[in-house]
Amino acid sequence: ANPKSVAESKPSFPTVRLSGMMQADAAWFSQDAANLALVGDVQDGADFRRTRLSAVGKAWDNVGYCIDMDFGFGGRPSFADVRLDVEDVLGRNDLRVGYYRQPIGMDVMTSAREMTFLERALPATFLPFRQTGAMLSGSREDELATWALSVYRFPSDFYGGNVGDNGGYAVASRLTAVVMQQGDGPGLLHIGGAYSLIDPANDLLRYRSTPEIFIGETGGGVPVGVPSDLPPFIDTGNIDTEYTQLFGAELAAVCGSFYAQSEAVYSVVDQRGGPTLFLPGAYIHAGYFLTGETRVYKGKEGVFGRVTPQKSVGSEGGIGAWEIAARWSYMDLSDENIQGGRMANFTAGLNWYLNPRTKFQLNYIHADVWRAGESEAGILGMRAQVDF
Amino acid sequence: ANPKSVAESKPSFPTVRLSGMMQADAAWFSQDAANLALVGDVQDGADFRRTRLSAVGKAWDNVGYCIDMDFGFGGRPSFADVRLDVEDVLGRNDLRVGYYRQPIGMDVMTSAREMTFLERALPATFLPFRQTGAMLSGSREDELATWALSVYRFPSDFYGGNVGDNGGYAVASRLTAVVMQQGDGPGLLHIGGAYSLIDPANDLLRYRSTPEIFIGETGGGVPVGVPSDLPPFIDTGNIDTEYTQLFGAELAAVCGSFYAQSEAVYSVVDQRGGPTLFLPGAYIHAGYFLTGETRVYKGKEGVFGRVTPQKSVGSEGGIGAWEIAARWSYMDLSDENIQGGRMANFTAGLNWYLNPRTKFQLNYIHADVWRAGESEAGILGMRAQVDF
Amino acid sequence: ANPKSVAESKPSFPTVRLSGMMQADAAWFSQDAANLALVGDVQDGADFRRTRLSAVGKAWDNVGYCIDMDFGFGGRPSFADVRLDVEDVLGRNDLRVGYYRQPIGMDVMTSAREMTFLERALPATFLPFRQTGAMLSGSREDELATWALSVYRFPSDFYGGNVGDNGGYAVASRLTAVVMQQGDGPGLLHIGGAYSLIDPANDLLRYRSTPEIFIGETGGGVPVGVPSDLPPFIDTGNIDTEYTQLFGAELAAVCGSFYAQSEAVYSVVDQRGGPTLFLPGAYIHAGYFLTGETRVYKGKEGVFGRVTPQKSVGSEGGIGAWEIAARWSYMDLSDENIQGGRMANFTAGLNWYLNPRTKFQLNYIHADVWRAGESEAGILGMRAQVDF
Repeated sequence: ANPKSVAESKPSFPTVRLSGMMQADAAWFSQDAANLALVGDVQDGADFRRTRLSAVGKAWDNVGYCIDMDFGFGGRPSFADVRLDVEDVLGRNDLRVGYYRQPIGMDVMTSAREMTFLERALPATFLPFRQTGAMLSGSREDELATWALSVYRFPSDFYGGNVGDNGGYAVASRLTAVVMQQGDGPGLLHIGGAYSLIDPANDLLRYRSTPEIFIGETGGGVPVGVPSDLPPFIDTGNIDTEYTQLFGAELAAVCGSFYAQSEAVYSVVDQRGGPTLFLPGAYIHAGYFLTGETRVYKGKEGVFGRVTPQKSVGSEGGIGAWEIAARWSYMDLSDENIQGGRMANFTAGLNWYLNPRTKFQLNYIHADVWRAGESEAGILGMRAQVDF
Repeated sequence: ANPKSVAESKPSFPTVRLSGMMQADAAWFSQDAANLALVGDVQDGADFRRTRLSAVGKAWDNVGYCIDMDFGFGGRPSFADVRLDVEDVLGRNDLRVGYYRQPIGMDVMTSAREMTFLERALPATFLPFRQTGAMLSGSREDELATWALSVYRFPSDFYGGNVGDNGGYAVASRLTAVVMQQGDGPGLLHIGGAYSLIDPANDLLRYRSTPEIFIGETGGGVPVGVPSDLPPFIDTGNIDTEYTQLFGAELAAVCGSFYAQSEAVYSVVDQRGGPTLFLPGAYIHAGYFLTGETRVYKGKEGVFGRVTPQKSVGSEGGIGAWEIAARWSYMDLSDENIQGGRMANFTAGLNWYLNPRTKFQLNYIHADVWRAGESEAGILGMRAQVDF
Repeated sequence: ANPKSVAESKPSFPTVRLSGMMQADAAWFSQDAANLALVGDVQDGADFRRTRLSAVGKAWDNVGYCIDMDFGFGGRPSFADVRLDVEDVLGRNDLRVGYYRQPIGMDVMTSAREMTFLERALPATFLPFRQTGAMLSGSREDELATWALSVYRFPSDFYGGNVGDNGGYAVASRLTAVVMQQGDGPGLLHIGGAYSLIDPANDLLRYRSTPEIFIGETGGGVPVGVPSDLPPFIDTGNIDTEYTQLFGAELAAVCGSFYAQSEAVYSVVDQRGGPTLFLPGAYIHAGYFLTGETRVYKGKEGVFGRVTPQKSVGSEGGIGAWEIAARWSYMDLSDENIQGGRMANFTAGLNWYLNPRTKFQLNYIHADVWRAGESEAGILGMRAQVDF
């Protein structure tokens, strides 16, 4: 499909590929009395965390696109990436227009197909994630550094929409670099920094978070007074703010079959008629492949990528890749007049990659909550995932 | 794409195929005065019964997947099969994980693309149909017998979700065999049996059914007091039950262009604080191809399959396949303190298969209802179907 | 995939192609005081106007199909074309069954992928657009004339459904002809006429319209009393009618890089217990390609088609196609006892086609409204579009 190599024939655009994924989750909850009092009796459950169908391809030799729909979430199908990309704008940069993940946060820039744990770490709550906007981004030719600058509407809903005469505009930027690399081999040190300035539509902002698990669905027939979905454990309520700033710092390393990743995020909320809020979050996680694989680093994006077992289950006769991982994460939604609570999660994980496209995951999450007193919950979560 | 036959090249997984179908229905209702009083004035209507897009393929040489979304039903897109299949587990068996049809009932295990009538027979109401779980299944190498054992969450909603600390687990198993086969020719006798034990989430169970037709949509502007969708004709209301057992028996036969299929289903509901309920259902249907075709039997699944006309309409110059069919079905939702009513349906059907992928169907359904007295309704239904 | 040319092999049907499109819009509103009083303070916003995934292909050598889902609109995914087409019925005609655009109106028969402006002209409000039905249509072998006759249910909702014992049936027919053609070159004169007779379900009919822009989504957090989506500027409310007739006339011309298109539509509403209403609408638009392209005419459908730049942006090294366009449109929803208001829109447009599949559009719309006094609004709208 490269028009240059077949000069005599017409280019055969558009190209299209059908892609998608399924994440089938189940979770079991154990809560102490204080936690039961705080959020109600969270029910055990099973649900599809993500069920996606997407079309990706090239509309022309320099224009890519993606339309990715998620059917697993409540409400109408929510939008994953819906965007077009014009290549080679202002040099080697790409211009992206549409609904996409805003460039702040290494964890949130990592594909949901390629996460080490069932959910992203708590500080993701602070970050804009997918919003509607336009972004210019690029990477060094040797893929040792990336940059991105995006302007976007905030808050965009799960379908890319935003309204509001009062504000609703934001900007985000992220810079990453590989500061040490062990030849082409499996060793590197990644650093990154990001910033976002947000003027939220209608001056409203709200942060809230469940522990690092999500079961969104009910099967019907839930008795009165019992939560039918997972309630937030910490919650600021609506904050009246003219603008908010986000600061992010990233550090990640690979050394053979071991890798680690850590981020700190600060949200500085300029309250209207109230004091400025300083809300911090941070996490660190590490993983190790028992079967000798290495976590791939995507130099063009500055994030970790897909795990390919050395020997997949199937005709190759292997046992796939086995990985153990652990994470500690923390988020503080309490400052001054806003007492949204604090939460820390500790997660232990076991991942079995049958092949590059199929994995089973097991997480145990212990959540400590400081909100209206101290409370605790333990969660066992499982996932079966296939993507294509 | 078979990695064994091209040992030197890497396997090209994942594979993906876009599939789907459309069923455009129309129905006209005639009700006697008692039926009008029982369920209201059911409106004539037209609607898409199923509108599906799906991705099916192999994630690896031994892992298949399916993500099948239905846009024809009310609410957000409901899930058809969303699952992954690991082949050759514990011998020649498949391990299926996700949302799929639970193995009990020959009618409900038959693909919606390949049904003789517009809707499945009444006793399907008792059966779990699609639920979220894990299943081990297989067939004899000569495809003369099948087995399946599944554990699942119950009730899963139309999006594969289930919550509830109290119960919500179930098991189902189905065995089928071809006990007589006329060489490789179009004659065989199929028997089958199935069982399911269900501990429903939150101890709630409800059976209800319309006649064997379904028009779910409104075009807006329905006057007050007129049903905007098809109401159930019989309905148990919520039953408080600790566990429920299902028993199913199947009998089917093919003889040249003639085939017949029959099932009996028993639901034994262990009421909390009440007597055990015995709720039976049964149906028998038969079809005959005027144009000489034979109903294909899928030996690996123990169900009937697709009709392929001997000469399709089109460049083959044929008239397609013409089939006449009839069905009687019955379901009793009244026992002891639960008086949900009884219903019998008699259906006459005419099917025109233009080609293996396109058909037009005409059904006349006569419904007899015994609930708060006796009442009757007659329904004329039509369908245009294409699948791919 | 042509079975005739490979007589020894079996035909390889069904065929399928994944198609789709994205339209990402943003709009800014300016209203005078009277307009603010009439419809409230319309908020600036951004949204995906259309986000579509579809499967199109052939089920057999003479049967085509299309299943096209739109995820950009509110509510569950709305149906674009969902239909099957049997070719060569009663001569060279096609029989279409399903949910499709009813044959009345040149503007509404033009693909949403190939529109000159962001939205269709105001009179589209009168026309049935997509409804569920069956249509026989064809064109002359030299593609200089088209005809279509369709029977359909009305009103079908956005998912193809319709209910109602009282009415709900309609018929539409359209005839077009090319009356002058400059050889095979870029010059022609198109005329067309269409008629529809509608007996709406439950005797209810309602016309309402926004200006020629549509932002349907909210990002949440809209203050009380502020419209979260774009309200209709003119609105008849429900009209009680036994039947309604629509008359349409079309005129269009191409001359080199210039083209123009105009339509007049009349709705004659037979009110129950009230006078007959005569409601007119009309528009004229013209476009000119600064870069020398010509508007393609699709002779088989009697509408304009896709713009292909002479030199696309990308490896061809071009600047794409640049087009300027203007439109005036008018609709009157006031007659006798129904005082829904009148509106005129004037639109100036600038289109940049990077390649045949990607374009950016800029529209400025000035709306004059006569309803409870006179009021005005100005709207700046932008779109990024990719389709495949």
